[in-house]
Amino acid sequence: MSIQAVELIKAYRLLNIGATTLISAKHDGVENVMAAAWVGALDYQPPKVTAVIDKIAYTRPLIEKSGCFAIQIPVAAQAELVLAMGESRHDHPDKLANVPLFYPPGFDIPLVQGCAAWLVCRLINEPHNQQAHDLFIGEVVAAWADERIFKHGHWQFDNAPDEWRTLHYVAGGQFYAIGKGFNLKQGSNVDD
Amino acid sequence: MSIQAVELIKAYRLLNIGATTLISAKHDGVENVMAAAWVGALDYQPPKVTAVIDKIAYTRPLIEKSGCFAIQIPVAAQAELVLAMGESRHDHPDKLANVPLFYPPGFDIPLVQGCAAWLVCRLINEPHNQQAHDLFIGEVVAAWADERIFKHGHWQFDNAPDEWRTLHYVAGGQFYAIGKGFNLKQGSNVDD
Repeated sequence: MSIQAVELIKAYRLLNIGATTLISAKHDGVENVMAAAWVGALDYQPPKVTAVIDKIAYTRPLIEKSGCFAIQIPVAAQAELVLAMGESRHDHPDKLANVPLFYPPGFDIPLVQGCAAWLVCRLINEPHNQQAHDLFIGEVVAAWADERIFKHGHWQFDNAPDEWRTLHYVAGGQFYAIGKGFNLKQGSNVDD
Repeated sequence: MSIQAVELIKAYRLLNIGATTLISAKHDGVENVMAAAWVGALDYQPPKVTAVIDKIAYTRPLIEKSGCFAIQIPVAAQAELVLAMGESRHDHPDKLANVPLFYPPGFDIPLVQGCAAWLVCRLINEPHNQQAHDLFIGEVVAAWADERIFKHGHWQFDNAPDEWRTLHYVAGGQFYAIGKGFNLKQGSNVDD
């Protein structure tokens, strides 16, 4: 099994490279997954995140009512799925029909299989930010990554197939995959 | 001259790929530049951004007092500079000595030469976010990009030298450059 827990103090590194994400949530038996590029780290310890979620998003009330959401980092092989998850379930009621979901141990929240990493977040309720800016803040309470591409607290893309690289969406169907890695502090402990 | 104005409605695309940024500001004749990975888009029109800026950052009071900051998107050739700008001016008073700055027309704010793009932002004062979360919100009032790598509203890395690719910082000196591009909606108008 290549999915391993990520230390919470290093969870921000999953978000630091600015990949496009998928956000999932569940309330009262209803699941959804949406694509979201406007997600980022907010704090180290406890780890916090921001996510911009429009008022028309089907996922938004699922988050508001359950107080929980998950951020996942999809990979290049999932680009078509990411575009599909950018369509609203209001318009496409069956959008999840072919999306492989799983439930992590200890949390009643659906996650998308095949991603590079997953972060389960507890909503920190901030009515002003949510209403005025569509801005949601969450505390990361658990995180996992595929250790074939994130290990020892660092991304490890250079020895992995290109299909496992993270996605960085521009607009109009245009994506970039993450590219070449380099380290300017060679000799530093890669676990740092 | 390869620096061209970016339509404000498309300014979010400069941030969408999640590159690590430099934030600059100036107050009362004092300039500073800091590295910041936790910067992202918040809205389309008017375009807004979020930026996480620690209370110990030298740049923070320059922003609070001037009500203005600039986000710039550095490129791979500037990776050493980005790491250097990650050190505080409190500890390195001369950190800007070798940083080539310029002033854009119409704004009294220093920008770093050689970046891929620049966004000048007016601070939207939100005391709770700033105090509780170190979270700053700005409205983008002007944006420019190097049209050799951002043109017609889209990034154009695939025909540019690798040194012009955006940087995506992990931790401990580890960076990735943005990689290969692809479009899943071939035939769509690239100006969309």
